[in-house]
Amino acid sequence: MTYSQIDTPAVLVDLNIAEANIDRFQAHCSKHGLNLRPHIKTHKLPFLAKRQIEAGAIGITCQKISEAEAMISEGGIDDILITFNIIGSEKLARLRTLAEKTKLSVVADNATTIDGLSETFSSASTPLTVLIECDTGAERCGVSSPQAAIEMARYVSGKTGITFGGLMTYPPTDKEADVQAWITEAKEGIEALGIDVPVVSNGGSPGMWQAQDVPVATEYRIGTYVYNDRSLQARGTCNWEDCALSVLATVVSVPTSSRAVIDAGSKALTSDLLGLDGHGYVIGRPDIKVAGLSEEHGVLTADTINLSVGDRVRIIPNHVCVVSNLFDKVQLTRGRKVLRPSTVTARGKVW
Amino acid sequence: MTYSQIDTPAVLVDLNIAEANIDRFQAHCSKHGLNLRPHIKTHKLPFLAKRQIEAGAIGITCQKISEAEAMISEGGIDDILITFNIIGSEKLARLRTLAEKTKLSVVADNATTIDGLSETFSSASTPLTVLIECDTGAERCGVSSPQAAIEMARYVSGKTGITFGGLMTYPPTDKEADVQAWITEAKEGIEALGIDVPVVSNGGSPGMWQAQDVPVATEYRIGTYVYNDRSLQARGTCNWEDCALSVLATVVSVPTSSRAVIDAGSKALTSDLLGLDGHGYVIGRPDIKVAGLSEEHGVLTADTINLSVGDRVRIIPNHVCVVSNLFDKVQLTRGRKVLRPSTVTARGKVW
Repeated sequence: MTYSQIDTPAVLVDLNIAEANIDRFQAHCSKHGLNLRPHIKTHKLPFLAKRQIEAGAIGITCQKISEAEAMISEGGIDDILITFNIIGSEKLARLRTLAEKTKLSVVADNATTIDGLSETFSSASTPLTVLIECDTGAERCGVSSPQAAIEMARYVSGKTGITFGGLMTYPPTDKEADVQAWITEAKEGIEALGIDVPVVSNGGSPGMWQAQDVPVATEYRIGTYVYNDRSLQARGTCNWEDCALSVLATVVSVPTSSRAVIDAGSKALTSDLLGLDGHGYVIGRPDIKVAGLSEEHGVLTADTINLSVGDRVRIIPNHVCVVSNLFDKVQLTRGRKVLRPSTVTARGKVW
Repeated sequence: MTYSQIDTPAVLVDLNIAEANIDRFQAHCSKHGLNLRPHIKTHKLPFLAKRQIEAGAIGITCQKISEAEAMISEGGIDDILITFNIIGSEKLARLRTLAEKTKLSVVADNATTIDGLSETFSSASTPLTVLIECDTGAERCGVSSPQAAIEMARYVSGKTGITFGGLMTYPPTDKEADVQAWITEAKEGIEALGIDVPVVSNGGSPGMWQAQDVPVATEYRIGTYVYNDRSLQARGTCNWEDCALSVLATVVSVPTSSRAVIDAGSKALTSDLLGLDGHGYVIGRPDIKVAGLSEEHGVLTADTINLSVGDRVRIIPNHVCVVSNLFDKVQLTRGRKVLRPSTVTARGKVW
């Protein structure tokens, strides 16, 4: 298949760029002595996870059990951290099965979750590693204070079937937070109890180039960096030419001289704004605004749109991770060379 | 399976409510002499499309060829309008194949699209019916004036392989528009050329109960009404008890007395706001705000959250159509009685 034969809308992934992104941040982490544990939520592709591990990553991060199940389905991945409170008998049974197939760790921030993990793994041959999730300012999950983290670490340490693995945080991306002070206070308090803190897992693509500024961290979790997107370009984290994923679309209507409509809407680009104006960047046309999306239509506006019906445009989405979740297949390329379509193995894995 | 055994996050579809919604609006259209042509984008389920036809609908609406292909895969659906400009040789070949299997009509708003349709169907045994899409104020696709619609109808009429089928519009949902005057001017101009205008297709769930106020319309296209959602409740189009689709989620963390976190994020509820504040309505808890979504986490806030880890909540999404597109299966229910999971046959069909 040639480039012009790709049916639209299509998600294109340029492996030249993705591999360069993987290698560049791996080098950054290696230079600073940080373990890298990529989050697969961005690509959802086992072969790219393996490429990240080959480059030097110590393992991967998943958010849900079903993502981890999908990731090990092809072999070659044997160290997974699931950064989610696992609740309920069905999920706990699946977690137990998963732990027999790979080196597994999870996070928890509450006693109910910890009790469930302990009961499930009390009869297992190997205890499950549990990290305490810490809210250092993002106000999502996580214990709310270093003191609460210390208490929770003590709680885990007193349980059968599980072992305390350290601390994990997803720091805020939209405000300052003293992650170093927060985690250091918790870590020192836990160590004062005679409990080792082998891992401190920090993360997030927005702060990736400052990962070393939290020296208490031993590892860094990061997803978006493999593809990059408009949100990271807007933050100065990457340049447009570092964006590996784009949505190829066809102009289907040019109703006025200032408006064109493409065949990619919110089912291709999603409504995620991440604080941005408009729904993506049209490569080579910074004058165009992706002004509106309905499910199958994208409305492009410009002073002079200068597009014709049948023209194709490539759009870098605001947020790539959610775009990966919409398509059964992505089209792999190296520049303009079309390789093959790849099934998005972990698409739709919310369980 | 019992209700409490459903793993979360899950999309629940209460057929009692969906069927009542179908029958109620069918009765409204029948009373006013309007043909009803439901848009399947909301449910993406052939069996519900057939239920709509059994209730009296004249056929269905799809936005993309792949949706139509999915809809006829189980049989029982034989009249489809695709409300999209079909562009490109691959799609046109599929359209030709599809037309051999079902009564098919499409829309167009430009000569390039019409030329492609004409060339593709010039050797077909039956001409393809083409309606002209009219922009009556929504500023998406559509010719911009009644005069342009007249010219385009004349253009279609002069082509081989296709036949002029009438006018179609998706009126604006966020401002007033005189659809009746716009379409009447176009229709009379076309008829003055000696060209019949057999169909005027109007649509949209927001204006559904005023469908009869555009008497020039012969048919009404509508999608969301089958499930309803928070956006339609906010407009006064439906009540909460008319909402057939909900997302069942589990509380996985309660970090503070005013915040809980559930296992349903933007991969379950989507980021579609449709002008609303917050990301959904927690049934029975109007005091709770679905304040934030990341991909796998939903953050609920309230003065007093009063939820515990392991509790379940049901959420009516802002926009149901995009939620249907995220899940491989939905769980069918009748009230609290769990029926069976149903594959979302037309999920992810963007081509």
